[in-house]
Amino acid sequence: MTREQLVTEIKKKESFLCIGLDADITKIPQHLLNNEDPIFAFNKEIIDATHDLTVAYKPNTAFYEAHGVKGWISLEKTINYINKNHPEIFTIADAKRGDIGNTSKMYAKAFFEDMNFDSVTVAPYMGSDSVKPFLEFKNKWTILLGLTSNKGAFDFQFIKDKNGKELSMQVMETASTWADENQLMFVVGATKAEFLGEIRKSIPNHFLLVPGVGAQGGSLSEVVKYGKNKDIGLLINSSRGIIYADNTVNFAKVAREKALELQQEMKTYI
Amino acid sequence: MTREQLVTEIKKKESFLCIGLDADITKIPQHLLNNEDPIFAFNKEIIDATHDLTVAYKPNTAFYEAHGVKGWISLEKTINYINKNHPEIFTIADAKRGDIGNTSKMYAKAFFEDMNFDSVTVAPYMGSDSVKPFLEFKNKWTILLGLTSNKGAFDFQFIKDKNGKELSMQVMETASTWADENQLMFVVGATKAEFLGEIRKSIPNHFLLVPGVGAQGGSLSEVVKYGKNKDIGLLINSSRGIIYADNTVNFAKVAREKALELQQEMKTYI
Repeated sequence: MTREQLVTEIKKKESFLCIGLDADITKIPQHLLNNEDPIFAFNKEIIDATHDLTVAYKPNTAFYEAHGVKGWISLEKTINYINKNHPEIFTIADAKRGDIGNTSKMYAKAFFEDMNFDSVTVAPYMGSDSVKPFLEFKNKWTILLGLTSNKGAFDFQFIKDKNGKELSMQVMETASTWADENQLMFVVGATKAEFLGEIRKSIPNHFLLVPGVGAQGGSLSEVVKYGKNKDIGLLINSSRGIIYADNTVNFAKVAREKALELQQEMKTYI
Repeated sequence: MTREQLVTEIKKKESFLCIGLDADITKIPQHLLNNEDPIFAFNKEIIDATHDLTVAYKPNTAFYEAHGVKGWISLEKTINYINKNHPEIFTIADAKRGDIGNTSKMYAKAFFEDMNFDSVTVAPYMGSDSVKPFLEFKNKWTILLGLTSNKGAFDFQFIKDKNGKELSMQVMETASTWADENQLMFVVGATKAEFLGEIRKSIPNHFLLVPGVGAQGGSLSEVVKYGKNKDIGLLINSSRGIIYADNTVNFAKVAREKALELQQEMKTYI
């Protein structure tokens, strides 16, 4: 998917919502456990109920890998279902991969070619040659971890160099020389909204994928205030706040209500 | 596996070799492609030919994920084969995972419980709460990226803070406060052997998993000179130099010869 297609979709749907498909077998409604593939059954209902309100879906691969081969099948069915029925929706494999060049190439192939995701999240620690194999795919996106939404972000991401620049900022500034805003995005946690203004000074054009709104405590209005750019430039992820808002047979209906609340607020910012 | 068991095995085999099972369908001998599962067939022959010379096997998960569900099946068959026939061998899922707490927990479950690996490699960027879920498993090991063997390591891992300390050193020093040498190891690339001496000043007791000997150009004698501690404290990985030394029907025999060369040299250092 190109940047233009993504921005068009955001304007059309008046939404920059990304729904995290973190389907956990211990949290999904009990009645789904009778299905042959409960995880896919859950995702399918969530997708059917929310596809007109969201511009992106983001399965976190951990939740699928936790079930081995069966989980991998659920993930493939989920991405195939989205690509077939809603090809206009941006898909993110939240995998946080990153390895030496020949190995990153294998990961890129897995997510971009075999599963046909539009994007994959990548960890920056191993540097340029661990990221570049992902950037070699046309019309595919690399979403690099910049400043994450968890407490542990404070362990290393705020370490300042001799010029007072934080590691996370150095990661984003350096990586933005590897690829432009047409194939590279950054993860920046909503729980650190005040840093978004600083980040936008160095990284004005790239899209930011923002987790942490909702269950992790981040505020949508704060994120928009500091992080929005001329093309919106934000994908705001919500996972648990939407998909686990209810765990009865009505879960998909309630998920839609929660997604609609966010979309209605987003509409006012576009 | 406990540290004591690992050290006992090293002394018994007079080897601290780890063989990387990075089975690439485009590189394995052609005659194996007739097998129902060529990747597993390849690994099985390598394991049968080398198990008495190596103390660890390290499949890199990327090479399996690149084949989707089929690849995941090959990985499960491989780890089950090792655990059943050679339970004394230390197994490493080279996955370089790391995510927010509830997600890292899913990864830990996948590799430690479902697949029963002894250890998994973890990326440090997201900090303590992304690593701790791995450390909660008894008699399992977390192998954190410290200083990697690739060129991209120079992008961020050598950034110095205001006191002149490199990021990689800060990562290892900080992480060594999260867990002791009985469940935490670090990845330190052989291509930067001269830094091993520095690292040993701060991290004297932890085992180091050292990739980069062989295809990537690192020297075994240099690594031992700077990195060895009282319990050896090293696992030296070789992947391509062993498993792809030959691509005829004799590949496993030649792999054994290459592994034997390394083991014979290691023997002199124990």
